[in-house]
Amino acid sequence: MQSQLKTHPHRRYNILTGEWVLVSPHRTKRPWQGKTESSHKKEAVTYDPECYLCPTNTRINGEINEDYKNTFVFKNDFGALLEDTPLFDYKEGLLHAEGEKGVCKVICFSPNHSLTIPDMELTDLVTVVKTWQKEFTELANASEINYVQIFENKGAIMGCSNPHPHGQIWAQHSIPTEIEKKTNTQKAHYQKEGTSLLQKYLEQELEDGSRIISQNDSFVTLVPFWAIWPYEAMIVPRRQMSNILGLRVQEREDFAHQLKTLTQKYDALFDTSFPYSSGIHQAPTDGKEYSEWHWHMSFYPPLLRSATIKKFMVGYEMFAMAQRDITPELAAEQLKSL
Amino acid sequence: MQSQLKTHPHRRYNILTGEWVLVSPHRTKRPWQGKTESSHKKEAVTYDPECYLCPTNTRINGEINEDYKNTFVFKNDFGALLEDTPLFDYKEGLLHAEGEKGVCKVICFSPNHSLTIPDMELTDLVTVVKTWQKEFTELANASEINYVQIFENKGAIMGCSNPHPHGQIWAQHSIPTEIEKKTNTQKAHYQKEGTSLLQKYLEQELEDGSRIISQNDSFVTLVPFWAIWPYEAMIVPRRQMSNILGLRVQEREDFAHQLKTLTQKYDALFDTSFPYSSGIHQAPTDGKEYSEWHWHMSFYPPLLRSATIKKFMVGYEMFAMAQRDITPELAAEQLKSL
Ligand SMILES: O=P(O)(O)O[C@H]1O[C@H](CO)[C@@H](O)[C@H](O)[C@H]1O
Ligand SMILES: O=P(O)(O)O[C@H]1O[C@H](CO)[C@@H](O)[C@H](O)[C@H]1O
Repeated sequence: MQSQLKTHPHRRYNILTGEWVLVSPHRTKRPWQGKTESSHKKEAVTYDPECYLCPTNTRINGEINEDYKNTFVFKNDFGALLEDTPLFDYKEGLLHAEGEKGVCKVICFSPNHSLTIPDMELTDLVTVVKTWQKEFTELANASEINYVQIFENKGAIMGCSNPHPHGQIWAQHSIPTEIEKKTNTQKAHYQKEGTSLLQKYLEQELEDGSRIISQNDSFVTLVPFWAIWPYEAMIVPRRQMSNILGLRVQEREDFAHQLKTLTQKYDALFDTSFPYSSGIHQAPTDGKEYSEWHWHMSFYPPLLRSATIKKFMVGYEMFAMAQRDITPELAAEQLKSL
Repeated sequence: MQSQLKTHPHRRYNILTGEWVLVSPHRTKRPWQGKTESSHKKEAVTYDPECYLCPTNTRINGEINEDYKNTFVFKNDFGALLEDTPLFDYKEGLLHAEGEKGVCKVICFSPNHSLTIPDMELTDLVTVVKTWQKEFTELANASEINYVQIFENKGAIMGCSNPHPHGQIWAQHSIPTEIEKKTNTQKAHYQKEGTSLLQKYLEQELEDGSRIISQNDSFVTLVPFWAIWPYEAMIVPRRQMSNILGLRVQEREDFAHQLKTLTQKYDALFDTSFPYSSGIHQAPTDGKEYSEWHWHMSFYPPLLRSATIKKFMVGYEMFAMAQRDITPELAAEQLKSL
């Protein structure tokens, strides 16, 4: 049966979003005559006087960055969300809009302008995770902030406008679309089975083994069965926790370790500073009970076949459904072997 | 009330997908130091001996293109969907996959290698619409084909690997995600009100006027209230029809006219051969009753502020929800005035 998934076009169900992806395993030999990307090099200098994220430099609004030694957090000078937005409700016939209040923050991972996550020391990665926890705690406790999205856009191809290693947090009043989907599917499973959906999924994946990239005592890194992006991956805690505040000391280290392992494998795959968007999905922070939520971190990398050929999510994908060529099993095998 | 939508961050509801988009009107002045695109030029020659879509040329599989005079349709040599795929059902614990059978076709719009839609004669555009109708009829009648997606990826930035003006059709057995969403919302409205959701929406938009780009006797072109892409637009027939086969002769001409008008405005906006993905959303072809469906054509263009600065749908957008800076009203005003 499983062999049919290796040869025939098929669709796969995403248990977390309730949506499907079209998989075309026969299509990997398609020649590519379209647009190619320039390759993704690491920065050469540890300090860039022109960089608005390097320590002691002045940002566009005149503020001066601290002479920070590990992580550094500040409010985005051009945030898409603002703290003083009124929560108005606009309803006019079929039209419906709502004021959206929130805050956008930038987190520099390191004072070193060229040090990306795969090259950071484990202890410094633990500091990054601690910073995420600290920010999450503060934002989750803010009234009228009901969801906190931690993410990173890495590489110019992912819309990142500054190569200095940094991530972002956008925290907001409403529950975003993706989180709503994942809450519904996890809740449905939890109510029926009394266990976390992802815990059950992990058990099945560990038994099967074909999509596991790496693992340690607390975390499993895998290519999900329903992956959309060619080398999409997911870091999942073995133990159910609704958000990253649940991490024990050892688990935090184990998480940092998987972060480093996965991104090192990414860099090695096409011998490039591998671009991606990564994000942590956690339970909403609206004070309600979310016993079903099992937090996880996902990586959506755009590269398809080399450092210069990316997957375009365009026409069919925008209008119909996601589509991929190489199978998740093949991607996992490649990443595992590195 | 409406003035709040001009100044404050807010989210808007998409009545067709049931999802929201975050709008940040204050953010248009954000400086851009990230990746820029090369500009989008039209091709200079009417015939390119290296092009696999030009008349009389040989494709990679050895087939020779007809010496066609207006449109030319063939099966994609590297289709993501294949006609002889078995419709297997794979279920293993939480994993679920299904064989997906279908066909991918390429439609050359014109023998002229450099003639894009905005520059085509109206009569030739009518021929393109007739070709879509012919293909749709044939595919809709094929057993086991339950949905037909007509689309175009225009420009290298949209993953288009050949500048020769062409679109595609991917027809398949399952109902894709986007269509399922739009079926559910339209059906809910139809069952409650007994009218088409889009007809009611059009009435409201025509009365308001602020998002209308252009119109004629049979069609309205507008920036939807919930637009995601900076210059997203939608061509909607005034009269409800579940698919393009319902078009009367005059309506077909009026449709071609709106197609030309919108794409001409696009090219004029940044003085460039404006890239986009466009697609026609229609009722499924599984033989069931879809009285609620009101077909429409949407355009998702990636450019944000100039021919070289695009909107990146990355981190936050992938993990949380869609986000835009300029308001749909501003975009409509700009496009209307051209
Ligand atoms: O079929 P093409 O033009 O070779 O390929 C293009 O359109 C397809 C359908 O939207 C996408 O899956 C591809 O990623 C894109 O490069
Ligand atoms: O906030 P930045 O890094 O300037 O901008 C980048 O990330 C944002 C959040 O994913 C996106 O909305 C922007 O399109 C992208 O360019």
